[in-house]
Amino acid sequence: MTEGPILGGVEAFLFDVFGTVVDWRGSLAEGLRNANPHLEEDWGVFAQEWIKGHYIKCRGVASGGPGATSVDVLHREYLDEMLQHDRWEHLADQLSDTKRQELTLLYHKLNGWPDTTEGLYALKKKAIIGSLSNGNARLLVDMAKHADLPWDVVLSGDIIGSYKPNPKMYLTAAQLLGLDPQKCCLVAAHLYDLRAAASHGFRTVYVRRPTEDTLEERDSIRSKQDGGEMAHTSTT
Amino acid sequence: MTEGPILGGVEAFLFDVFGTVVDWRGSLAEGLRNANPHLEEDWGVFAQEWIKGHYIKCRGVASGGPGATSVDVLHREYLDEMLQHDRWEHLADQLSDTKRQELTLLYHKLNGWPDTTEGLYALKKKAIIGSLSNGNARLLVDMAKHADLPWDVVLSGDIIGSYKPNPKMYLTAAQLLGLDPQKCCLVAAHLYDLRAAASHGFRTVYVRRPTEDTLEERDSIRSKQDGGEMAHTSTT
Repeated sequence: MTEGPILGGVEAFLFDVFGTVVDWRGSLAEGLRNANPHLEEDWGVFAQEWIKGHYIKCRGVASGGPGATSVDVLHREYLDEMLQHDRWEHLADQLSDTKRQELTLLYHKLNGWPDTTEGLYALKKKAIIGSLSNGNARLLVDMAKHADLPWDVVLSGDIIGSYKPNPKMYLTAAQLLGLDPQKCCLVAAHLYDLRAAASHGFRTVYVRRPTEDTLEERDSIRSKQDGGEMAHTSTT
Repeated sequence: MTEGPILGGVEAFLFDVFGTVVDWRGSLAEGLRNANPHLEEDWGVFAQEWIKGHYIKCRGVASGGPGATSVDVLHREYLDEMLQHDRWEHLADQLSDTKRQELTLLYHKLNGWPDTTEGLYALKKKAIIGSLSNGNARLLVDMAKHADLPWDVVLSGDIIGSYKPNPKMYLTAAQLLGLDPQKCCLVAAHLYDLRAAASHGFRTVYVRRPTEDTLEERDSIRSKQDGGEMAHTSTT
């Protein structure tokens, strides 16, 4: 991680979790495969679509729409919706209520990227580290135990009562840490999240992950970075 | 810690912090003394009175009265009040605004009891461990870093938006952990807190600390314990 003067004065590093800290696409696909050994499906595509649903559902609530502020609920709702439609309809009878609940809990046990745990332990010695995730508190606690994520503080959709990119998420996080936003840094692999954080005064670090954001978005951030607004780290 | 069938099924141990996990009376008195080497005062008595104010202020808000849900604010308010009255009035001019702020932050760096860190690391391997404290989030994060308290989750007055013994504190904590109250256990050195938790379905563990609660209250808990309602651990 680049730590030049650009991050001087930062007292708390808050991390996006899904995709940034853990490999959700790979872990979910693997979990789906292991949970359904008798079903021949492209679980990678299934995971990808489920994750798309995560974004759709969270965005709806973040922008003031109805819905639970626990992603456990949203993940289950979207899973049920997927199984009602053309592509995955044939799986509806194969996946019982109990099985669907089990699959929804796969989000609690996602695996960290190879550099995650070592990086967090190192950073924890210098600053406050926390999640700032759309995940719910219990999900993030289970994941931290599973993937060895030594958070100083878990900040979540259900603790704050919304989802990113709702301004409340960033501003309440800073407030709970007793910090001006410019002393907080959001670390994420998603531009929409970093842009929202920056618009509320947060410092930002972009972490490039092979599965997150598109090439075009990465090019766009690279040119912005030349303006000195955003620290940057590559993991590829 | 006793772990008989009485605690079977508990998935999360939530700890009162001030007095239970850290020695606030001793740490505050020492901090006050070190911060004011030129002033000859009985800082132990001063600390005791300041702590009494903590309870008075928190109780007021917990029972629906006005006041901030950050104890940093309440601690400072009570400090200012103490310095306006007979016993400590002579200190008012000695303690500047800056110094009062510095003293208020002593609550962020309290020392753990000798068994605290080892006990928390051991328990963390078996269950979720968290604070369930009237402290504010930043205070609890600073304290965890100072005293090596490996919380899985920090639950605080400002995160939940009240103070113990308001029912919201216990019920919201259980909800955020996705647990029925009977799968949560409050660990505390104060009877008022344990009684409130138990009345909302929490399991309870009483930790005896030499500075907390009175002898009469301890006797009372001992007789209740014979009824099998409360696990008990002694550190004296």
